Amino acid sequence: MSKKVGVGLLGLGTVGSGVASILQNPTDRHPLVSDIEIVKIAVKDLSRTRSTTFPSTILTDDAISVVDNPSVDVVVEVIGGIEPARTLIMRAIKAGKSVVTANKAVIARHGEEIAQAANKSGVYVLIEAAVGGGIPIIEPLKQSLGGNKLNRVTGIINGTTNYILSRMAKGDEVYEKVLNDAQSLGYAEANPAADVEGLDAADKIAILSGLAFGGNIDRSSIPTQGITSLQSRDIDYANQLGYAIKLLAVSERLNKGNEVPNSLPLAVWVQPTLVPRDHPLAGVNGVNNAILIEGEPIGEVMFYGPGAGAGPTASAVVADILNIAGIRLLGDSNQYLDPLLAATSWRKCHLANPNDIVQKNYLRLKTEDSPGVIGHIGNIFGKQNVSIQSIVQFDANSSGAEIVVITHKVSQGQMKHSLDEIKELTAVIGVEAKMCCL
Amino acid sequence: MSKKVGVGLLGLGTVGSGVASILQNPTDRHPLVSDIEIVKIAVKDLSRTRSTTFPSTILTDDAISVVDNPSVDVVVEVIGGIEPARTLIMRAIKAGKSVVTANKAVIARHGEEIAQAANKSGVYVLIEAAVGGGIPIIEPLKQSLGGNKLNRVTGIINGTTNYILSRMAKGDEVYEKVLNDAQSLGYAEANPAADVEGLDAADKIAILSGLAFGGNIDRSSIPTQGITSLQSRDIDYANQLGYAIKLLAVSERLNKGNEVPNSLPLAVWVQPTLVPRDHPLAGVNGVNNAILIEGEPIGEVMFYGPGAGAGPTASAVVADILNIAGIRLLGDSNQYLDPLLAATSWRKCHLANPNDIVQKNYLRLKTEDSPGVIGHIGNIFGKQNVSIQSIVQFDANSSGAEIVVITHKVSQGQMKHSLDEIKELTAVIGVEAKMCCL
Repeated sequence: MSKKVGVGLLGLGTVGSGVASILQNPTDRHPLVSDIEIVKIAVKDLSRTRSTTFPSTILTDDAISVVDNPSVDVVVEVIGGIEPARTLIMRAIKAGKSVVTANKAVIARHGEEIAQAANKSGVYVLIEAAVGGGIPIIEPLKQSLGGNKLNRVTGIINGTTNYILSRMAKGDEVYEKVLNDAQSLGYAEANPAADVEGLDAADKIAILSGLAFGGNIDRSSIPTQGITSLQSRDIDYANQLGYAIKLLAVSERLNKGNEVPNSLPLAVWVQPTLVPRDHPLAGVNGVNNAILIEGEPIGEVMFYGPGAGAGPTASAVVADILNIAGIRLLGDSNQYLDPLLAATSWRKCHLANPNDIVQKNYLRLKTEDSPGVIGHIGNIFGKQNVSIQSIVQFDANSSGAEIVVITHKVSQGQMKHSLDEIKELTAVIGVEAKMCCL
Repeated sequence: MSKKVGVGLLGLGTVGSGVASILQNPTDRHPLVSDIEIVKIAVKDLSRTRSTTFPSTILTDDAISVVDNPSVDVVVEVIGGIEPARTLIMRAIKAGKSVVTANKAVIARHGEEIAQAANKSGVYVLIEAAVGGGIPIIEPLKQSLGGNKLNRVTGIINGTTNYILSRMAKGDEVYEKVLNDAQSLGYAEANPAADVEGLDAADKIAILSGLAFGGNIDRSSIPTQGITSLQSRDIDYANQLGYAIKLLAVSERLNKGNEVPNSLPLAVWVQPTLVPRDHPLAGVNGVNNAILIEGEPIGEVMFYGPGAGAGPTASAVVADILNIAGIRLLGDSNQYLDPLLAATSWRKCHLANPNDIVQKNYLRLKTEDSPGVIGHIGNIFGKQNVSIQSIVQFDANSSGAEIVVITHKVSQGQMKHSLDEIKELTAVIGVEAKMCCL
């Protein structure tokens, strides 16, 4: 190649520094890495001391000038957050430049607008780093699984919550204590809401769902339950019943749903979930992520690895830069985009009515310790056609008893009706926990 | 796209039928699937009854005519075996046609010749189905990990042996019995040698090694130990010490080795291996495969899924066809190949001297039940600088004792010297098992 591929890097935080470090040290990596050159880097504060020094001509605090620079062929956005990231991405696309971004928040919310603009401009927007850190998952979904009818995507896609749950599972440490530890180790942010409330996982499952099923869904309507109210006792009871608890994000094809013409109904949710101990996702611990894909005829495949961190995320960003560089070699003025790499929607999808989501459920009820109560509960479930896998009473004492119910698969609508009736029972003090169960 | 991409299918066995079934039923799959058309299918026996019917104009028993057919753009080879597969692949390449093959035996032995011819002709030879069945592993290695300095590839890449080992681990069934079961279930062939002697795994690690490190190695010189002599007692002892036994295929970068100028020394082997029970590979059971990749800066990523079977393998073959079809949309007469997809060697690699391979070892020694024997063994290892993790005596009785030694990491050269001396001890009846240990 006569000319190097010029990269304009927006952001030089941990991920940006990781990307620069790879591109500046091409030895032992794919030879295409040495055909890539960092032309400009936009930083917030030029005066900050950095571990790596760059020629003063490369650094600037004017991000727009980086996007506009004629030597920049590919814009790499690793600023994060919605703005100015979104505006800069759109500007790059309009200037006919391909974009690599690690920004799940922008893609989950503005992915459709961005994809349409990219297709119009004939450029790529690649997002491998937006989900699963270093794990190759976006590209396999786009390029390796296209022959399949995919049925379900199930992911542990938030490292912070998986770290917290793994720690809670090990001992009897409570949520607040482990969250504090995670914060001091840098695994959780000072304001951990996006992680622990499941919002980050919801962003990511929205993205994976769009790739797996070929159409976007309304990110803001995904039923999302985080881990903030998870009790150690639920982890303990789950363990006694043979399960680990993981925060799972799921998108699955429904055969029924609130029908929208020519649109595929999807059940999508984020929820703490009991995972049987011999299930491949049960062994995914610490800050690791894993994504399980089920389809026909492939069966089940799982992708596992570090879900966050400067190095893994930089690896994913560089993969995308290499892909664009590789395709550029085929000619600078391609009339078409590779439809596997391009950000294409090829089907309408919609979120099914939450009442139509079919799940196994874990319930913990606080009841009076009276002999008939399990019978009453069982009767109500029976009347609502909710089939029960197990009812176990834990921890009966003078203040009452705890009853844990695991159902077979039922619609959330049926579940809600049953719980409404169960709450009316005089012996039932309250429904204290409700989770999904694989 | 105005014109469909024409596929010539060589072979209509289980994988070929699976591929045809996907291509004939595009609904719910990536829309690019409907742009692919099976033009011709070469079969061995035209008179055989088949579950799927094809127009008689499509089937032929003349494979060469399929390769030569001007409407065939992509040749898909799913015959298996060395010949005539190799000749047909080379013929397709020379005719300027891209090739998709599931043939690990041909690629492991003739990969370099094929790659050179493909690059000369400006065509792709894609091999996703050759390793790991349906698991996307070739494409992620080529396209998603290029920013990394890879250090090690470790795979459970033979489903037959993993099934046998998983069954043996469950109970006290012996090798021969489980092999018989595997044969009657269709998991093992009537002549199981290629699988159980590790040859199939050696083919596959040769391919993965070439992709991970950018250069070919001599397939025929890979130290290969199968599972034919594995005893149930070793599985039992390993279990008591906290390990599962898996047949692992490994390729790793060595920092030393028998130096060849400008060439990367690699330690490559296939060997039954003790895997700590909390290691991600330990939970891979049945006919599943998994490949663990270690690199910098990514850390560890693992790819897991069905390692064989018509459906998964067909999924991988179709992925490759889609990739070629996607790139064809960029223009039919590309002057260059995408260097990430093309079959490129970009570095010289060579197999290190087996004595320089550094491993932890599991040894089972048959000894007389005399009090000094552990001391004598320990002394010899000490003299050879072999550091010991544990020595445990199992099963002492009148006919002698069994001593299991797990070493720390040592070179196989040191190991051999130690074992030569240990065999000379009068109290040592024999070294009855030697395996690797993670």
